[in-house]
Amino acid sequence: MTATPEIQVDAALGVTSPQGFRAGAAAVGVKALTEKPDVGMLACDVEAPAAGVFTQNKVCAAPVVVCRDHLGARKTMRGVVANSGCANAATGPQGLADARDMAARAAQHLGCPAEAVLVASTGVIGRLMPMDKVRAGIDRAAAALAAGPEADLAFTRAVMTTDTRPKQAGVRLQLAGRTVTVAGATKGVGMIAPNMATTLGFLTTDAAVGAPLLQRILGRAADATYNCLTVDGHTSTNDTLVILASGLAMAGAKPVAKGSRDAAAFEAAVTAVCESLARQIAADAEGGTKSIEVRVTGAADDGEARAAARAIANSPLVKTAFFGEDPNWGRIVSAAGYAGISSGPETMRLEMGGVVIFERGTPVEADPDRLKAVMAAHDIDVHLDLGAGKGKARYLTCDFSYDYVKINAEYTT
Amino acid sequence: MTATPEIQVDAALGVTSPQGFRAGAAAVGVKALTEKPDVGMLACDVEAPAAGVFTQNKVCAAPVVVCRDHLGARKTMRGVVANSGCANAATGPQGLADARDMAARAAQHLGCPAEAVLVASTGVIGRLMPMDKVRAGIDRAAAALAAGPEADLAFTRAVMTTDTRPKQAGVRLQLAGRTVTVAGATKGVGMIAPNMATTLGFLTTDAAVGAPLLQRILGRAADATYNCLTVDGHTSTNDTLVILASGLAMAGAKPVAKGSRDAAAFEAAVTAVCESLARQIAADAEGGTKSIEVRVTGAADDGEARAAARAIANSPLVKTAFFGEDPNWGRIVSAAGYAGISSGPETMRLEMGGVVIFERGTPVEADPDRLKAVMAAHDIDVHLDLGAGKGKARYLTCDFSYDYVKINAEYTT
Repeated sequence: MTATPEIQVDAALGVTSPQGFRAGAAAVGVKALTEKPDVGMLACDVEAPAAGVFTQNKVCAAPVVVCRDHLGARKTMRGVVANSGCANAATGPQGLADARDMAARAAQHLGCPAEAVLVASTGVIGRLMPMDKVRAGIDRAAAALAAGPEADLAFTRAVMTTDTRPKQAGVRLQLAGRTVTVAGATKGVGMIAPNMATTLGFLTTDAAVGAPLLQRILGRAADATYNCLTVDGHTSTNDTLVILASGLAMAGAKPVAKGSRDAAAFEAAVTAVCESLARQIAADAEGGTKSIEVRVTGAADDGEARAAARAIANSPLVKTAFFGEDPNWGRIVSAAGYAGISSGPETMRLEMGGVVIFERGTPVEADPDRLKAVMAAHDIDVHLDLGAGKGKARYLTCDFSYDYVKINAEYTT
Repeated sequence: MTATPEIQVDAALGVTSPQGFRAGAAAVGVKALTEKPDVGMLACDVEAPAAGVFTQNKVCAAPVVVCRDHLGARKTMRGVVANSGCANAATGPQGLADARDMAARAAQHLGCPAEAVLVASTGVIGRLMPMDKVRAGIDRAAAALAAGPEADLAFTRAVMTTDTRPKQAGVRLQLAGRTVTVAGATKGVGMIAPNMATTLGFLTTDAAVGAPLLQRILGRAADATYNCLTVDGHTSTNDTLVILASGLAMAGAKPVAKGSRDAAAFEAAVTAVCESLARQIAADAEGGTKSIEVRVTGAADDGEARAAARAIANSPLVKTAFFGEDPNWGRIVSAAGYAGISSGPETMRLEMGGVVIFERGTPVEADPDRLKAVMAAHDIDVHLDLGAGKGKARYLTCDFSYDYVKINAEYTT
């Protein structure tokens, strides 16, 4: 995850902040026993070059199959239809037909081919979509399409599952002398251990960027942000991150060219939005009480650094220790030890919140009061230097609490 | 894990049941705030061919380094010294000196070279051994050396950490016309996700078996039992499984020969003891309320089957669902999906407790009352057939409860 401190991320910007986008939502009871919005639509007024990255889970959901098909068939999109409450995963041929039906119905409202609409679902795996409700929801969401802060939030809320708050972010930047906007919405907050993408993320921009460059930039941004995030190590069946570029803020200007300074600026903006969204997921993790950033440096290569950071971030022993505010750091170095790294403890150095507790394979007597203060904080920085090379990586994660168990023991019943 | 239903495992047999072994223990406060035994010794009256398998964690504990050194230096052993309360891991040169000191002190009591004693420690990582206490404990444990059920239990209790009960098992069998015994003791019950061995396990036998055959048999038995066991996916720094063979029940007979029928019978007995010990660990898992056996069949190869079974057994989402007695089976098939298998959901079939709930990529309407009864049971059988080949594997695991979080949030503080 590349730090981009110089870029100002604005949480007031949402998916309809870029020119040309409208959003709408409806509550139709796909999420049982609530009156929360559960079907959302995102529409672009023009044909928008689009790109997407999706779960690498072999049990991939029907909407992911449909998105891959549609992005394979055409390079521009007119909109996205999304729902929460039912993941439409492990649902066989009927599930695939339902996902296609969702795209077709949304497309009717937008006056475009079904292939110009992307589909995203989240919720319980292994249940067929309640299509009567979903169809009614699409009709109502289409009727509600609008731009502005309320529409942004309505769409974002429609994809929430166990999220406690909506998650969005945006960046304004200058490209070719014009002010363009990159914005996005996402959802969490369980079954989060992305592989190529995570959960659902929807990015919009009014920059003019062709689909191939958009795909390259989105892939790299996802890899540096979403793919370095874990709540529970369980890669979802539905992970989807898409971007649509209306180009309307750069009307008359040439599209952003590959390799140009504008492309770099645009990529930095997309990455900053993705990073903000990923951090919002980590901060709202199911049952999480702390945000933990695990940095591994000095690895033989970046791959080993990433494996070590991921093992630390996924270990239930590490996560429960953080919940207990217990500086049981042996769990951290031992997690790195089973991650397949080629170096040993002799060269390791571990710091938490700037306090050194392990150096050259030997415990360091740390000031217990300083360490206690580090563990009591909401945000905790863990820095393990393997002392073996130049590889580095960063992972965002959370602790494991009673509430994680409660939320996930009671999720469907 | 090979099922060995024909072999009768006897929980009344312990490490001193085979001829030639004595055990002793002492409580000296290595485990703070308790008066539970925390230093144990196991002695063999004769030079016993020995073998061991150890953690693959790169951050491996000092006693593991010492065991590897000693088994490299000689093929027979006279005893084992073990402690709980302090893992002597991530303790640098001082930790290594302490582990060697433990072997030397135990060797003095046994009248043998230090290299003829193996060392095993378990407990908190990253703390130096309180050697004054440990030395006193070794002296007292040596003075208490005896054979019989009380000695068996004393030794077993001395290596318990969060275990709620001692774990031992034995098998009697006929080799070369003599009755021989294979017995073992082990401990759990957190930081359990073995890789080559797990946690601490001590096997004894009075069969006459040479060290090379013993090593081969122990490796295969560990791979089929301990290495298919996970509580929390966190491979320990201290995993150690050793076997000592006194040969005293076969005095005058030729040692068991590689490839013989007796070798197969002996291997089956060792495997049965290891399987019983591994099951006892799973049943006493930290905070566990259920024993879950995950069987994966029909995989492209055994490696894919094992990866899928391990992903299912380690997923916090799967484990919390079992704690909630929630048949949220989508989490099971999706865990297999991210395990790196080459087949997809189209050929999958999932049964829980004999109830089919997913077949050919499509949910099956299962009788809710039957499914409820399956989920309410203490022992739950999960069988996922990938429908892609002949690969198979089996994993033992447990659920994730509030108590897992409680135990591990409060472990050192």
